[in-house]
Amino acid sequence: MSDTVLGVSFPRTADPGVVGPTVGVLGGMGPAATADFYAKLIRATPADTDQEHLRVIIWSDPTTPDRTRALLEGGTDPTPWLTYGARVLAAGGADVIAVPCNTAHAFLPAVIERVGVPLVHMIERTSRHLAALRPPVREVGLLATTGTVRAGLYGEWLAAAGVALLEPDAASQADEVMAAIRLIKAGRRDPGLLASAARRLVERGAQAVIAGCTEVPLGLRADDLPVPLVDPTQVLAEAVIAHARAAKGSS
Amino acid sequence: MSDTVLGVSFPRTADPGVVGPTVGVLGGMGPAATADFYAKLIRATPADTDQEHLRVIIWSDPTTPDRTRALLEGGTDPTPWLTYGARVLAAGGADVIAVPCNTAHAFLPAVIERVGVPLVHMIERTSRHLAALRPPVREVGLLATTGTVRAGLYGEWLAAAGVALLEPDAASQADEVMAAIRLIKAGRRDPGLLASAARRLVERGAQAVIAGCTEVPLGLRADDLPVPLVDPTQVLAEAVIAHARAAKGSS
Repeated sequence: MSDTVLGVSFPRTADPGVVGPTVGVLGGMGPAATADFYAKLIRATPADTDQEHLRVIIWSDPTTPDRTRALLEGGTDPTPWLTYGARVLAAGGADVIAVPCNTAHAFLPAVIERVGVPLVHMIERTSRHLAALRPPVREVGLLATTGTVRAGLYGEWLAAAGVALLEPDAASQADEVMAAIRLIKAGRRDPGLLASAARRLVERGAQAVIAGCTEVPLGLRADDLPVPLVDPTQVLAEAVIAHARAAKGSS
Repeated sequence: MSDTVLGVSFPRTADPGVVGPTVGVLGGMGPAATADFYAKLIRATPADTDQEHLRVIIWSDPTTPDRTRALLEGGTDPTPWLTYGARVLAAGGADVIAVPCNTAHAFLPAVIERVGVPLVHMIERTSRHLAALRPPVREVGLLATTGTVRAGLYGEWLAAAGVALLEPDAASQADEVMAAIRLIKAGRRDPGLLASAARRLVERGAQAVIAGCTEVPLGLRADDLPVPLVDPTQVLAEAVIAHARAAKGSS
């Protein structure tokens, strides 16, 4: 930590090495999913005192236009909001950016290119995590927004990892998955809609299910399913910690 | 929202009024308490879609030196860390700052003066909340860090509100309250230490108990007590929302 930053004089710390990288979280999509990610990041960090935890800066802008509407219905492009948030994070000192929203990943290549801070890619990491599961998973079901499904965000990375993707049929996607996600975003409970959609995927042969929208883990528990439920929010939290440790070790 | 901010061009929104003030959270003291505050802020916001939630920027710096040690043992002054965080929040566009750490409030007057963004003062708001309780509370017990207790942070505001303060005796403060707070900061459970300390305060006449360290609500439930448990984190969340609504209404 340098002596003067943003006009603030810091005393030289006894061990500047205790300060690792700063994690930037581009969130608010939705806010409850960002709070869930932040809580998972804290729980996944091995620490006995406050001072051993990661420094985090969170930009939570729930006014970011709806990602699914932008992808499917010609709604407002969220890219300016995402770019602005990523710039605030970079200006605040973020060394790495995590985005706990699956659908937003459709817009991130342009954002990250303009901001110059590396991204820990949630969908890439989740696909790698799935490819490493034992016993091996050949077919995986996806519970995600219609925007994420239609944009093919998981299909691309899963194909690279050698895992086939099973999507809900159109009725289940609209009346179960999207209905449940909207309920959770409104702060209400999902009355079994996600569990029902997941069971249909398992009946069709899914050997694991991806909770592929950050609201899904808020409405579906691993116990609700006979196969592994993969939580990309948790995978992202662990990947961010691994990234921060590697960065700290190399500094 | 202006057209160009931080070099990003925004399309003019159909209703710029949907964008209210940005809430700055100076946190990380500890990180779990900040995550708890953020979750409470989201739950206390009346909203059916992401876009109705508040825009929030969180600076979570768990490396901020221990506040109790600075107050009692001549430890490193956390003021530079707090000032730096507040400047990051101001630079990121925060219109108001909330600090979900009671003990940090001992250092805030100097910080806020240097940054020029108004503070929603958690201890002031909690004292006002207590004074408004019916039936009236004449004596209130305090579960807080030894730093908060010795710095007299609650005593000052409660006296102004006409409420007398009951503090744990020295043994209960050290072996129950501080021991429990350290366990919670280390991610472990409190095996009834806080409930025991609270019961002693009630036996001595406390008609309500303040969960006066943001870790305390993580280890003590209202059901554990025969009198009201006042949670300053919840009071702060509601005060921030009221502040944001007033600011939006007047803009």
